[in-house]
Amino acid sequence: MRDGRPRVTRSRGLLLGDIPGILRTPGSRSVSAPAPLILLSPPPLGMRKAYPRLVDRARHCAADGFATAAIELPGSGARPRLPAAERAVADLRRAMEAGEPVGDEIIDALILPLVDRAVPEWRAALDALLSLPGVGGPVGYSGGVISIGTRLAVVEPRISAAVLFAGSFVPRAMFAEARRVTIPLHVLLQWDDEGNDRQTALDLFDAFGSQEKTLHANMGGHTGVPQFAGDAAARFFTRHLK
Amino acid sequence: MRDGRPRVTRSRGLLLGDIPGILRTPGSRSVSAPAPLILLSPPPLGMRKAYPRLVDRARHCAADGFATAAIELPGSGARPRLPAAERAVADLRRAMEAGEPVGDEIIDALILPLVDRAVPEWRAALDALLSLPGVGGPVGYSGGVISIGTRLAVVEPRISAAVLFAGSFVPRAMFAEARRVTIPLHVLLQWDDEGNDRQTALDLFDAFGSQEKTLHANMGGHTGVPQFAGDAAARFFTRHLK
Repeated sequence: MRDGRPRVTRSRGLLLGDIPGILRTPGSRSVSAPAPLILLSPPPLGMRKAYPRLVDRARHCAADGFATAAIELPGSGARPRLPAAERAVADLRRAMEAGEPVGDEIIDALILPLVDRAVPEWRAALDALLSLPGVGGPVGYSGGVISIGTRLAVVEPRISAAVLFAGSFVPRAMFAEARRVTIPLHVLLQWDDEGNDRQTALDLFDAFGSQEKTLHANMGGHTGVPQFAGDAAARFFTRHLK
Repeated sequence: MRDGRPRVTRSRGLLLGDIPGILRTPGSRSVSAPAPLILLSPPPLGMRKAYPRLVDRARHCAADGFATAAIELPGSGARPRLPAAERAVADLRRAMEAGEPVGDEIIDALILPLVDRAVPEWRAALDALLSLPGVGGPVGYSGGVISIGTRLAVVEPRISAAVLFAGSFVPRAMFAEARRVTIPLHVLLQWDDEGNDRQTALDLFDAFGSQEKTLHANMGGHTGVPQFAGDAAARFFTRHLK
């Protein structure tokens, strides 16, 4: 708590191994009880580019009494490129510009190696974050690449609830993992998102094994999530992590 | 205002022609500014059977500062039966029990005459309700038979926003009407609703012409709308009618 006012939050850079990140804690809680933690996964375009939206989400969470942490995804920002993933991105662009369907092999090459690398990193980050003063459980996950959130929800028992953004392509292999998810889910879908397939998003929502799962679909493209939809996601976390 | 406490609300029976109804006003507002009105359409099983849920919705709205009015649907409760609609209900039950697809002719016979009769009744009720002291605009509609709400949203310019429950079968003819809807919509869908077709509900959501439309899909059957989904619908009205 820097000066005693309730809405002051603290933001600090993190380095987890060689992975850069940001931690924000709600100032008013840091002296008293540890704040529940929300992992804010940035989009794969890199934390620097996504910074304004990421900070907005983090501030919103801090005002609600949550600590948040973001770490750079593998291959994003200043982290070493992943040549195979970059080839997949190029193939994806080519297919989309040509108006061709995006084949399974492109989606698999784009997403599966990212999931394989990112999930252990988030788990190691969680070990480190939960050892910090002022940061505690329960833990939520709020993320941009829905396949990463799906696998994390299956393999990481410390995550109690997740907000997932259905805004990326989904490998077929993820459907079997989705059926094994049991934590409460709040899924955001932009109805006219250019960066994913709406029917696949609906099928994935259907596949999740959770008893409590909610789909909030809104109009507009990938980056057009309305403010009220963000507010609803925040209330989901307050309901489940407090 | 019965005793000056802010949460006290007044409920009174209405008779609009020969149509029974209920009006509830937020006690604290009745002396000062008129309260915005929400039309609470009961389900077609009759107001008496739906009473506990209807009262719960009305109390919630009153606490948020809204007046609410419900009128009995044609053929429901103590109102004269509609023999053609009753034959359609029997045909529907037979088809569902036999595990057969529900044909268009059954859906049309079940829904279209109900829409044709109910919509002018709601409009006449609106004339009467808006002339009462303590009741004003803007007006919202929150209703159970989605085709009634769809047509009302098209033909009744005094309705500014609607919460629609995608829990009934939809005649194909309603899709053209849905495209003409332009007011903000908040659509509730129970993912495993036994009383409608999920894909048709999603297609209807897609068809609505409104720039702001949100779909909230939750787990469970027809009557299992979770409390938090009701709360979100209430916030939609607060955002649009206040």
